[in-house]
Amino acid sequence: MGGSVFGNIFKISTFGESHGEALGVVVDGMPAGIRIDREFLDREMARRRPGQSALTTSRSESDHVEILSGVLGDVSTGTPVAMVICNTSQRSKDYSELEEVFRPGHADFGFFSKYGIRDVRGGGRSSGRETCARVAAGALAKMFLAQYGIRICAYAYEIAGIRAETFDIAEIEKNPARSPDPDAAVAMSEAIAAAHRENDSVGGIVKCFIDNVPAGWGEPVFDKLDAKLAYAMMSLGSVKAVEFGAGFAVAKMRGSENNDPMLPGGKFASNHAGGILGGISTGARIEFAVAVKPTPSIAQEQQTVDKDGNPRTITITGRHDPCIVPRIIPVIEAMSAIVLADFALLNRTVKI
Amino acid sequence: MGGSVFGNIFKISTFGESHGEALGVVVDGMPAGIRIDREFLDREMARRRPGQSALTTSRSESDHVEILSGVLGDVSTGTPVAMVICNTSQRSKDYSELEEVFRPGHADFGFFSKYGIRDVRGGGRSSGRETCARVAAGALAKMFLAQYGIRICAYAYEIAGIRAETFDIAEIEKNPARSPDPDAAVAMSEAIAAAHRENDSVGGIVKCFIDNVPAGWGEPVFDKLDAKLAYAMMSLGSVKAVEFGAGFAVAKMRGSENNDPMLPGGKFASNHAGGILGGISTGARIEFAVAVKPTPSIAQEQQTVDKDGNPRTITITGRHDPCIVPRIIPVIEAMSAIVLADFALLNRTVKI
Amino acid sequence: MGGSVFGNIFKISTFGESHGEALGVVVDGMPAGIRIDREFLDREMARRRPGQSALTTSRSESDHVEILSGVLGDVSTGTPVAMVICNTSQRSKDYSELEEVFRPGHADFGFFSKYGIRDVRGGGRSSGRETCARVAAGALAKMFLAQYGIRICAYAYEIAGIRAETFDIAEIEKNPARSPDPDAAVAMSEAIAAAHRENDSVGGIVKCFIDNVPAGWGEPVFDKLDAKLAYAMMSLGSVKAVEFGAGFAVAKMRGSENNDPMLPGGKFASNHAGGILGGISTGARIEFAVAVKPTPSIAQEQQTVDKDGNPRTITITGRHDPCIVPRIIPVIEAMSAIVLADFALLNRTVKI
Amino acid sequence: MGGSVFGNIFKISTFGESHGEALGVVVDGMPAGIRIDREFLDREMARRRPGQSALTTSRSESDHVEILSGVLGDVSTGTPVAMVICNTSQRSKDYSELEEVFRPGHADFGFFSKYGIRDVRGGGRSSGRETCARVAAGALAKMFLAQYGIRICAYAYEIAGIRAETFDIAEIEKNPARSPDPDAAVAMSEAIAAAHRENDSVGGIVKCFIDNVPAGWGEPVFDKLDAKLAYAMMSLGSVKAVEFGAGFAVAKMRGSENNDPMLPGGKFASNHAGGILGGISTGARIEFAVAVKPTPSIAQEQQTVDKDGNPRTITITGRHDPCIVPRIIPVIEAMSAIVLADFALLNRTVKI
Repeated sequence: MGGSVFGNIFKISTFGESHGEALGVVVDGMPAGIRIDREFLDREMARRRPGQSALTTSRSESDHVEILSGVLGDVSTGTPVAMVICNTSQRSKDYSELEEVFRPGHADFGFFSKYGIRDVRGGGRSSGRETCARVAAGALAKMFLAQYGIRICAYAYEIAGIRAETFDIAEIEKNPARSPDPDAAVAMSEAIAAAHRENDSVGGIVKCFIDNVPAGWGEPVFDKLDAKLAYAMMSLGSVKAVEFGAGFAVAKMRGSENNDPMLPGGKFASNHAGGILGGISTGARIEFAVAVKPTPSIAQEQQTVDKDGNPRTITITGRHDPCIVPRIIPVIEAMSAIVLADFALLNRTVKI
Repeated sequence: MGGSVFGNIFKISTFGESHGEALGVVVDGMPAGIRIDREFLDREMARRRPGQSALTTSRSESDHVEILSGVLGDVSTGTPVAMVICNTSQRSKDYSELEEVFRPGHADFGFFSKYGIRDVRGGGRSSGRETCARVAAGALAKMFLAQYGIRICAYAYEIAGIRAETFDIAEIEKNPARSPDPDAAVAMSEAIAAAHRENDSVGGIVKCFIDNVPAGWGEPVFDKLDAKLAYAMMSLGSVKAVEFGAGFAVAKMRGSENNDPMLPGGKFASNHAGGILGGISTGARIEFAVAVKPTPSIAQEQQTVDKDGNPRTITITGRHDPCIVPRIIPVIEAMSAIVLADFALLNRTVKI
Repeated sequence: MGGSVFGNIFKISTFGESHGEALGVVVDGMPAGIRIDREFLDREMARRRPGQSALTTSRSESDHVEILSGVLGDVSTGTPVAMVICNTSQRSKDYSELEEVFRPGHADFGFFSKYGIRDVRGGGRSSGRETCARVAAGALAKMFLAQYGIRICAYAYEIAGIRAETFDIAEIEKNPARSPDPDAAVAMSEAIAAAHRENDSVGGIVKCFIDNVPAGWGEPVFDKLDAKLAYAMMSLGSVKAVEFGAGFAVAKMRGSENNDPMLPGGKFASNHAGGILGGISTGARIEFAVAVKPTPSIAQEQQTVDKDGNPRTITITGRHDPCIVPRIIPVIEAMSAIVLADFALLNRTVKI
Repeated sequence: MGGSVFGNIFKISTFGESHGEALGVVVDGMPAGIRIDREFLDREMARRRPGQSALTTSRSESDHVEILSGVLGDVSTGTPVAMVICNTSQRSKDYSELEEVFRPGHADFGFFSKYGIRDVRGGGRSSGRETCARVAAGALAKMFLAQYGIRICAYAYEIAGIRAETFDIAEIEKNPARSPDPDAAVAMSEAIAAAHRENDSVGGIVKCFIDNVPAGWGEPVFDKLDAKLAYAMMSLGSVKAVEFGAGFAVAKMRGSENNDPMLPGGKFASNHAGGILGGISTGARIEFAVAVKPTPSIAQEQQTVDKDGNPRTITITGRHDPCIVPRIIPVIEAMSAIVLADFALLNRTVKI
């Protein structure tokens, strides 16, 4: 099992450690006849790439994707598409301390408890670097979904307590925070820089909306569309919460307020449901938000223990993003696309 | 695919409509040699049963579970355990209006868009009644998990804006709201009754904690323990949000604050992580919360459309819980147990 | 896992022991909008039913299927179809000897080694009675496949060394051996009766052909159409071999002889491939054969051991078919239909 | 789905075309703590490598495996092991004819019918070259299985009608036919060479036995050990039949003859069952045989059609093995090992 395979029809199998030879993904179930847009793939990878702005880690990776199979000319053939991203910028630093000590806020202790062994170099498999394979697979999913006119857009709604108050979709990719509010973007960037100067990190909230998903996607009762999206979002190590539509606010609502009245033309008077009812898309905009925790790797002394259970302190040096939000945004879009591609294909099988 | 199968090793396949012949579940992967405690199973079913208190629907079902296979004497044999709950209290009312009109806040439109057909009697497969099969399967999972000393406890943290301010585990099952704070329980019950009188409904927040899960459960990278728990929770039609540990509050934290310092003895100085880091259990208490929307079926006039897209109004009569929280609590525990049973078994396969 | 779930899209989950309360199956992924033909379902069950002729066990079961869910009126709704067959004719005989002794040719020792416990009543889960659930699911699969014009036909090609020399499809269901050659059928019946008189049993070969499968079904590289059919056939406890097209005879052929020349109109000059090349249907008739072992339960003294490894003898009384071939024929058709239904649905997902 | 993922716990995802950039596999579920023996891996690959003897294609590939992840030092970490084999010896020949014409005995027509597109270069995904990824994964499976003392041995039992009459395990890897009978090996080699001279090819039978599989592996009712082995064997494009133990010979046996009497010490007086009863291993030697068809690519004129259905002739030049048997032997072992590794892990989950 392992846990590195995701999806039913559009099925991805990812691999790779942050400081190993390479990372990558095999997409089994990519339909035949899709135009593979190399430039789009590169652009998606560039959005997640480390070193893209002053807000992210100074570690720079080209993150070039090599496509090994499944594509003939620029068209998918229906066979598995394997994509590999070679690691090029792993500093050969001394990891001997990490072999003995568990980093707070990291999966170190869990991995060691689980496997009795762990790859300490850069966090190994539990590093966020793993997500580059998801972005590559997500780019394929987006190419497939293009035929449905689906648009997926994630952005920084809140960083370090600063919220986007305005929404201009054209602004999102123009600022390093990926905020739709240019003023908030400036404040977010300053807050990230301040935290970094103080050897600390900050968290935030990413919002995502998806347009043009037809009514009827999602499989009752377990494989609800929102259930699978939540599964996909929570599979990101730094995500600690997810809500759809009105989310936690439904707790204080009454039914008469929360129910979205249906209007002629397949429209709704409101969208507290976030475009999903009973796990099936309604045709309305799909909306969700996720909470992203502050980067656990911080360059200040923290209390921890070693393998023998003795108290220790640790100061994590190295190049880490002081805020995960800007670079997780393309990953959230990618995982959304992967989930939707799977449901699009599954939905072809539900009727005579 | 269908979407009614859940789990990898401890795999459940559920079936049944609210007004069909019966509902049930086949558990494939129930390990052999587990003592099957009929009384415990009955008690778990009774906790979810309609008609158990003044707060729930007046519709009464015995919800008796018949075990058809997989058990010899009172011990599991390792073969599939099939459990069936017959429907006994379906009123033969007139559903002809529902055939034409989509209920706001329900999956009606989604089902119709998806399948081109839907079972309108009581909501069919999208009814909350479907969850009785989950509770039966969850009871088996709890019997299996008993050997690990695992305790799963869910409770009403907030209903209609009223929060539990104190926590006494012994109180939870003593009041119909399932609140650990007896004073809040009274206020919650009153708020539910008030909403009911006003032909309306209320939402709330359920919290759940799980003790004694060993460090090391959960499969990176997709099948993280929290990812699968989120998947399980969001597979409940009325759940719109889920958060682990500090949840959405991490967005405003700094890394130095959010990281839980490790202490000798496998302990942590705090538990913002909710017992899961990088998708793997740390040995600390697992904690999460889910938002439950107000019951969409309300006895007041609502705006909607019919199959032809014409504007209509609808007033939903019938017997519905004015608040889903009290009865969803055993379901949340059941789904947690099903997820944990699967990971407990999977974790036997990860090492030489 | 358990092993009682089969299929990807058209997914079945079976349960039940020969002497338990009931057997059955949940079909998750039955497409919506299929007309459910109760009479056809009953006929299919009757073909597998014990006690249908002098050649089969004198044990008689009505094998009535109760449909619990997933059907509205006489149309499938897209939700799981659960079907249950209650056991009615289990003789309450003394099974205490079987608790101590392993029957030769049976799964007794394997089950005990595996689970440390086994249901000895009538063989429990390893009884051929388990296949009634497959026939029920297969009937649904056939109803779905009807839209493609697919015809599946299995028959007794050889019993006790007697081969069908002629082929008249109309004869198959007219004789208790299910042979397409009426003369061979008489000889087969006599051979079965003779073996029965001598407290023994006989084996045989079942052939199956499938017409009108479109070219293109089957998924390379593992989920080849023939690979999945072989998997399905070998999942029957009494099947020990399977071959497609020329089968074992290819070993002695040359390529120039074995290759089937393609003709205009999607035809082939021969069919050594059995309608499948590289795991994908070619549009030609699909043809395969399976070897069915003689019933292991025989009423003569056999050498065996008990749980403690001591030598023992055993004479198996009770009502058993002296030849499994006639009654396995509908099961082979059912499993074929289940495999094909899955591939039919999967094939909707392979192209843009 | 795609069909290129195999296994439940020990799960492999393969990719690659014969003339693409590379082929490979991701093994998700490789347990942690296994010593990864690079030399053993290389030896296994060398056994399948083209160009290894006069009997095989003159095309030479180094088939060097690059391990990209999941291994630290020489120990598996529990995370996915990705292995890539780059293509180095694809001749840039003219494939324009193959774009128009379907090769007899090949999957060309099926692929085109399925996807509406196919990679004609060297057969693309349907080429036997795909199996190099299986051998790499199988080598890992064997490393894992070593702890159980399991030995898997496949060999050429028959080629071009010539049967091995003696059995000396030490001879198998000494002759290019991989026959356990050195005299037969000479005759087999001559027969292969003769066919090659005549622009033709020959088929054969591979036998495989597996020792030291404990009693109790295999999952009733569908995931029987023999069912999964048959599935694995039939997933090889040139295999047309598989039989276990006495196989097709059971058709002529009586129960009293076919049943294997049990003896004290977990032994059996015979092994008609081939070590598997009711789908569960008995502890006896597992034995099966597969029929391998003659190579369909032959350098003589054959009748076929083009894409438009017009009659055409084709003469397939290029470098092809005149007999697939010698090089499929390590693939059969590899697939057996993959199946067994999966069941070994699954069997850890079946009891309390």
